[in-house]
Amino acid sequence: MSAANSFKRGCAVLSGDMLRTHTCGELRKKNVGATVTLAGWADSIRVQGKIGFILLRDRYGLTQCFIGKELAAEHNLAEIRKESVLRITGEVKARPANQVRTEMATGEIEVSATALEVLNPADPLPLELDENIVSTEETRLQWRYLDLRRPRMQQNLITRHAITKAMRDYLGQHGFLEIETPFLAKSTPEGARDYLVPSRIKKGSFYALPQSPQLFKQLLMIGGYDRYAQIVKCFRDEDLRADRQPEFTQLDIEMSFVEEEDVIQLIEGLMVHLFKEVLGVALPQPFKRLTYKESMEQYGRDNPDLREELGVDWAPVWIVDFPMFEYSEEDKRWYAMHHPFTQPRELDLLLAGKHERVFARAYDLVLNGSEVAGGSIRMHRYDDQIKVFEALGMREEDYKEKFGFFLNALRYGAPPHGGIAFGLDRLAALMTGCDSIRDVIAFPKNKEAADLMLDAPSSVTKEQLDELGLKKA
Amino acid sequence: MSAANSFKRGCAVLSGDMLRTHTCGELRKKNVGATVTLAGWADSIRVQGKIGFILLRDRYGLTQCFIGKELAAEHNLAEIRKESVLRITGEVKARPANQVRTEMATGEIEVSATALEVLNPADPLPLELDENIVSTEETRLQWRYLDLRRPRMQQNLITRHAITKAMRDYLGQHGFLEIETPFLAKSTPEGARDYLVPSRIKKGSFYALPQSPQLFKQLLMIGGYDRYAQIVKCFRDEDLRADRQPEFTQLDIEMSFVEEEDVIQLIEGLMVHLFKEVLGVALPQPFKRLTYKESMEQYGRDNPDLREELGVDWAPVWIVDFPMFEYSEEDKRWYAMHHPFTQPRELDLLLAGKHERVFARAYDLVLNGSEVAGGSIRMHRYDDQIKVFEALGMREEDYKEKFGFFLNALRYGAPPHGGIAFGLDRLAALMTGCDSIRDVIAFPKNKEAADLMLDAPSSVTKEQLDELGLKKA
Repeated sequence: MSAANSFKRGCAVLSGDMLRTHTCGELRKKNVGATVTLAGWADSIRVQGKIGFILLRDRYGLTQCFIGKELAAEHNLAEIRKESVLRITGEVKARPANQVRTEMATGEIEVSATALEVLNPADPLPLELDENIVSTEETRLQWRYLDLRRPRMQQNLITRHAITKAMRDYLGQHGFLEIETPFLAKSTPEGARDYLVPSRIKKGSFYALPQSPQLFKQLLMIGGYDRYAQIVKCFRDEDLRADRQPEFTQLDIEMSFVEEEDVIQLIEGLMVHLFKEVLGVALPQPFKRLTYKESMEQYGRDNPDLREELGVDWAPVWIVDFPMFEYSEEDKRWYAMHHPFTQPRELDLLLAGKHERVFARAYDLVLNGSEVAGGSIRMHRYDDQIKVFEALGMREEDYKEKFGFFLNALRYGAPPHGGIAFGLDRLAALMTGCDSIRDVIAFPKNKEAADLMLDAPSSVTKEQLDELGLKKA
Repeated sequence: MSAANSFKRGCAVLSGDMLRTHTCGELRKKNVGATVTLAGWADSIRVQGKIGFILLRDRYGLTQCFIGKELAAEHNLAEIRKESVLRITGEVKARPANQVRTEMATGEIEVSATALEVLNPADPLPLELDENIVSTEETRLQWRYLDLRRPRMQQNLITRHAITKAMRDYLGQHGFLEIETPFLAKSTPEGARDYLVPSRIKKGSFYALPQSPQLFKQLLMIGGYDRYAQIVKCFRDEDLRADRQPEFTQLDIEMSFVEEEDVIQLIEGLMVHLFKEVLGVALPQPFKRLTYKESMEQYGRDNPDLREELGVDWAPVWIVDFPMFEYSEEDKRWYAMHHPFTQPRELDLLLAGKHERVFARAYDLVLNGSEVAGGSIRMHRYDDQIKVFEALGMREEDYKEKFGFFLNALRYGAPPHGGIAFGLDRLAALMTGCDSIRDVIAFPKNKEAADLMLDAPSSVTKEQLDELGLKKA
């Protein structure tokens, strides 16, 4: 975890806030003799007769503070509770060689306190922060701001920050523009269920929160932006499986004038950069590729875990040559396996009604048995898009109502384009070694899509509903 | 516009996509003799007898392509419409000295075409892209993907990208972590109206889209994250004034163990970095400061435009010493001028009921007569927060229902903290010289909060409402 750790350590720039001179992870032997002021949380308080030791903690580390007889008496040390916020001024002293604590970055020194201030006393905590004591997920989510103090959670979110930084740096170097797309968008049911937002100004009408910025990014290509990338929240109102969230984050990418190989090369470069910067791991290139057929035949799944076979900790593999369509026996109709904006490779077979023989210009990136990204080359011609809508059994009035604005856009100079989207929560969970994406999200929902800390969703007033022209059914 | 322009120019990394060897802004005299393939939009097509010239455009620039007799005849040049997407292969040739076009970065050369492919023909456009022809705002928003092709709009969004990049770089260097906060949150009406999102799983209950991540960022400080920054969408369902959007973007910042001066110093450094990187402008430090009283007395407003007085193009000024409360004659009650989480400076006066004499630990940053950022030192003690809620006339049952989770958090070791939030749309509009924030937003809403391109908000099916347990009133 090289970069995440070095990021955690290397924050000398923080020195000199009004309330502290140094962070709790900063002092070394070279600081011996200096008078310093630290601020942080009482991680532990040890009273030995009339003196005591406070281990002061912040995001950057831990520093031991020695509290002498006078100061200990003045503050009644035994009554300061763990997790109280303290400010301690004192002199940095070297520890005797036999008392150096090598497991702590500040283990060569301690601060001999001359002043102690309780900035904010803490009540007894409803949640144990010790990593060895397991709390229920419900307790952790209800008191999330306390759960977030655990070093493991802090390291997860720091690593997630390092991941997004590495992504942005790489994509910026490759000419990608970060452009924001709207959240109050249009309901276009396709697969998953939309979250709706009632309009007050146009009563009885609704916005929808986007399931992805798919059409917006294609419109940005049509608008000539050439290379777009955004880290963005997406929303799907689905029944939640173990590892889904109603709001989740994508790294969303789209490029003009490209074919499959351009996207694949760019993304391999991104992954190599990411793993080097964040984990200090050198991913070997090129990544293995399997066709969908090979993957299904050899592994019985389209997201194979090749770690044993490839003999490394990290086994990225591209899955290519996906079928364009899959048939639903239940609904007696064809669905687009990726989505209906993906370009089919054999348009002539489609016209002949041979859906099952049509491949998609789509690709998935699988890492250690999880799909972490998926994308495709899109249709850029109006006629082709219509053919696919019709092959999916959509009626003209339906696709024109839902996607009319987008179909129009294809008629005014749409460039060939394609892209990909990463599931950022899943990738961050893999890279931090977490089983659940909830461990890399600051304020996640539970399996009932509720925020237990906020108590959301919750009731609203009748006045609020009246203003929206709605009532409970 | 130094960095935005150099960013636009400096994209040699793009060379070598499958469908092109170079961008339209890239070729120079040193490329003469090379065979190249360009792809882009037909910005203009000029037929001269049996030969012709196509000016090919992409995000990176314009390149003139010469179409000889044979190729012109093969493609019936006169029938290729403007804004069609073309791919042209040819040899780079130097222009004679008297034909060099100095106003174009590629003006030293032209491409003598040997092959021309129409990748996608364009229908006649419903919107004129010429900067000199003014379309109505309605037309521009309806055909936004075409409006986005105008060089001015492209430059605006490229500059906005440069702004967010400079912000992230600076804040990353100063130890700030980017942490995402939820969009499906809790309705806590305070001032502006919430956008509501009905829950399907808990029928009759609602999420609210956050008006700002204010409480989340304070909870992150309580969780020990020390320095947080996020560029994030916020939502307010208000009647729109000329320059408001129902969804808008904030650069949101929070810091622990700080006082006013820490935030002010950090933000001055951020502004200096931003203006240097994006505009090549050196903002002189320190910024001028005015108390609220001085500003009102001298300028009659709390967002004075000091450009004339300071004799520069950019006149940042801090407004400090705001009153904590303002009295509403209409509602016969006190309101928090900033927000109810801001720390009052004179808590003893508050207890004595002398609201009008209490100042807030708040600060606004005003630039050229616009408030671009506002923030404060927050309350970190439970008792103080209760006192302010009560001074605002809130009843215990009300503030406990709305803010109970947050009040609890203040009891478990909340550090002193404060922060600030920038209105990113407004700042980007100022820095690009735009009158309207709609010109720095890719897909904005109109004054009725509608997206004219998407036709949103729009109707949804009865099934969708049934699933939410709602019906129209």
